[in-house]
Amino acid sequence: MKIKGTFLDEISHDIPHQNWGRKEWEKDFVNMRNAGIDTVILIRSGYQKWQTFDSNVLGSEMGAHRPPVDLVQMYLELSEQYEMDFYFGTYDSGKYWVNGDYRKEVELNKRLIDEVWSKYGEQKAFKGWYISQECSRKTGQIIDLYASLGEHCKAVSNDLPTIISPYIDGVKNISQYVTTTEKEGGVSLSKHEQEWSEIFDGIKHAIDIVAFQDGHVSFDELTDFLKLNKQLADRYGLACWTNTETFDRDMPIKFLPIKWEKLWMKLEAAAKAGIEDAITFEFSHFMSPQSAYLQAGHLYNRYMEYLRN
Amino acid sequence: MKIKGTFLDEISHDIPHQNWGRKEWEKDFVNMRNAGIDTVILIRSGYQKWQTFDSNVLGSEMGAHRPPVDLVQMYLELSEQYEMDFYFGTYDSGKYWVNGDYRKEVELNKRLIDEVWSKYGEQKAFKGWYISQECSRKTGQIIDLYASLGEHCKAVSNDLPTIISPYIDGVKNISQYVTTTEKEGGVSLSKHEQEWSEIFDGIKHAIDIVAFQDGHVSFDELTDFLKLNKQLADRYGLACWTNTETFDRDMPIKFLPIKWEKLWMKLEAAAKAGIEDAITFEFSHFMSPQSAYLQAGHLYNRYMEYLRN
Amino acid sequence: MKIKGTFLDEISHDIPHQNWGRKEWEKDFVNMRNAGIDTVILIRSGYQKWQTFDSNVLGSEMGAHRPPVDLVQMYLELSEQYEMDFYFGTYDSGKYWVNGDYRKEVELNKRLIDEVWSKYGEQKAFKGWYISQECSRKTGQIIDLYASLGEHCKAVSNDLPTIISPYIDGVKNISQYVTTTEKEGGVSLSKHEQEWSEIFDGIKHAIDIVAFQDGHVSFDELTDFLKLNKQLADRYGLACWTNTETFDRDMPIKFLPIKWEKLWMKLEAAAKAGIEDAITFEFSHFMSPQSAYLQAGHLYNRYMEYLRN
Repeated sequence: MKIKGTFLDEISHDIPHQNWGRKEWEKDFVNMRNAGIDTVILIRSGYQKWQTFDSNVLGSEMGAHRPPVDLVQMYLELSEQYEMDFYFGTYDSGKYWVNGDYRKEVELNKRLIDEVWSKYGEQKAFKGWYISQECSRKTGQIIDLYASLGEHCKAVSNDLPTIISPYIDGVKNISQYVTTTEKEGGVSLSKHEQEWSEIFDGIKHAIDIVAFQDGHVSFDELTDFLKLNKQLADRYGLACWTNTETFDRDMPIKFLPIKWEKLWMKLEAAAKAGIEDAITFEFSHFMSPQSAYLQAGHLYNRYMEYLRN
Repeated sequence: MKIKGTFLDEISHDIPHQNWGRKEWEKDFVNMRNAGIDTVILIRSGYQKWQTFDSNVLGSEMGAHRPPVDLVQMYLELSEQYEMDFYFGTYDSGKYWVNGDYRKEVELNKRLIDEVWSKYGEQKAFKGWYISQECSRKTGQIIDLYASLGEHCKAVSNDLPTIISPYIDGVKNISQYVTTTEKEGGVSLSKHEQEWSEIFDGIKHAIDIVAFQDGHVSFDELTDFLKLNKQLADRYGLACWTNTETFDRDMPIKFLPIKWEKLWMKLEAAAKAGIEDAITFEFSHFMSPQSAYLQAGHLYNRYMEYLRN
Repeated sequence: MKIKGTFLDEISHDIPHQNWGRKEWEKDFVNMRNAGIDTVILIRSGYQKWQTFDSNVLGSEMGAHRPPVDLVQMYLELSEQYEMDFYFGTYDSGKYWVNGDYRKEVELNKRLIDEVWSKYGEQKAFKGWYISQECSRKTGQIIDLYASLGEHCKAVSNDLPTIISPYIDGVKNISQYVTTTEKEGGVSLSKHEQEWSEIFDGIKHAIDIVAFQDGHVSFDELTDFLKLNKQLADRYGLACWTNTETFDRDMPIKFLPIKWEKLWMKLEAAAKAGIEDAITFEFSHFMSPQSAYLQAGHLYNRYMEYLRN
């Protein structure tokens, strides 16, 4: 089981920034290639007032801050140079859909998608879209949001593929702003199946790939959830990838690299569930030899040994 | 907008120690010089029972632990060697003034100031005083504390300059011992203006420089607060610097280096507000190429690129 | 006062993993030797479903995950190669004894001890046992647990020595899953003496060495507690070591390396209390030149300077 893709965690909203410039990013694309990664997914193009490029839409509508560099352009160029597929992540207002106004989140993003496609659509590495609004349950108008944004992305871009990466409302679905690591009463398999059947049924024409995050359930439950996710995706005709998280959810310090044994178990469990493709959140903080967290470089070495065996 | 000074975070009370010896400190003074820094400010000479040198006053009055090295002497020597101005930070009992007994905090510090001036006052790099008791509002007898200590520092030292570095009681004024990053209801501009008018009016004869911390308000509010702080300082004849924080207040992990974009925005905002001098809390953890947090070295590189442009 | 031993923090349950392979572990055994360490203590052989080797007992009884490598074997080989004494740590279910069922915790561990001795007992470096169930008070059937496991370890291994490392229920006895660092009302000296008298009296035939953790009381109280612990151990015929913690309990971020001054004070306090041997929790994260926390390498340098003086 190989990790073929990674998120690019810009704009992050909870993981401290590494302050890399273009030189460091280029070096990391080389690191990724060496590890067999050929797909990069921008986690989101903007969050609240922060943005990855100087968007007219986000500037005028959200009063977004003008960023010092155009990260989208840089990632597209590096992707082309290193033969990566680049997926563009939508904007997360952090408020409209969170407060129930899904319509406004959708309308704003449609305008952004238009702007982005007109600005970057001709670039060779632009290969798809990531709908960055993450959810775990059939909450609010999430079906409509995924369907509308997926349809719009595909309409403007001649049917480029669309990805979502939901999570499971498991025992480790805990705010990053608390220090505990588990809660009582995660979602049951049957409830998860019921809600995601309805969601997939409503979005199957607009979303091509679903990559559930694999870190919110206990290791004992993981295989069952992975199998269920694969069955559900198969039933509704979506491709099923696993988003194998490379940070450790079991520690009082949030967001340090995961123990290799855990990553290995999760990859093996996904393979057993019949899943063939893995992406990760994310390479540059948690698995890169040049990460500020030196545990990440050792994780990279363990993973490379695993690839060779 | 250049950062011309930095705090030296010894004694820290919330940021893990880097365990540097003299060799590492000397290397960091070189790093600071290369970044254009010519002023170093000892954040505090002691906190509770911890102290930066073996003070008779703190030993007898507070039962302070005897430290393994004399950091004040070392900093003075390095400052002289690298042509830095050294500001000495007062002692923070962590209890007297916190519990309302400002008088005792003042009396103790007056005796310490006498001891310090007699011990280190003739050294060439000793160029001023930092009154380390930080506040955000007109609390207790804070005016009297600043005025008394400022007067005393100036009286013993032939009028060497005095600095304070208050904060704004904004939405990010949150204890470092909780994991949330924002609160409701920061102070309003008018309330801030009213309280700091009274404070400045009461301390203007004793304090030369005010350098408000710039991290406790949202980025949207920052420019207005910076302008107000500059106006207030001008009105009462204090020099107005900005203390631009180089750690990120928006993250679940407390006290990792800030994202360059945020630092850049804060420096630009200060320049727009007419402020000409910036210091930072602080170089060695958050901006140094040899920091234990590798993000800091990348922040240094981004800042150096900015200086060159 | 020299640190002669260190725990090996595998399986950790709260400190992020460094993802070292054999090469890094061998390098760290060299680092340890250079610092004068001749004893390594496996903190626990397993915790919940995680284990350090593929145990039949833990696999069948607990459904433990099959680990990717045999850490016990590796540590034994490295210990032999670098002339270290290896102590094997018992299994911590994280539930039986925690929920009051000490009997089950004991029975399971007896079977594990049999398995371990039969599998690894002939190896040259296998020099003792660590009873990994840590406590601070005479809680539940802790006396029976220590006595039963100690007796069993000694019975199967021709009387190899047994160690426990309790903590003091002091003001810093705080969950690692909260961000505060102190509580009100630590245990008093007399209460500590009373409870540990009873415990030592009940375990003195089965436990050879007690190494209290030294991080849970304030620095002002430490000497008194160290002296009391030494007296208590002498009274009941146990050897008294100090387990000098090398991480800092006073910081909002949990588990970063301690400030050298604090470690130095704790070592001096232990020497003053008549204690002659120190071990630490633990070298590889908090004191190693190759730790992911770079503060650890500087702590190592400060400690080495101290050894040379």
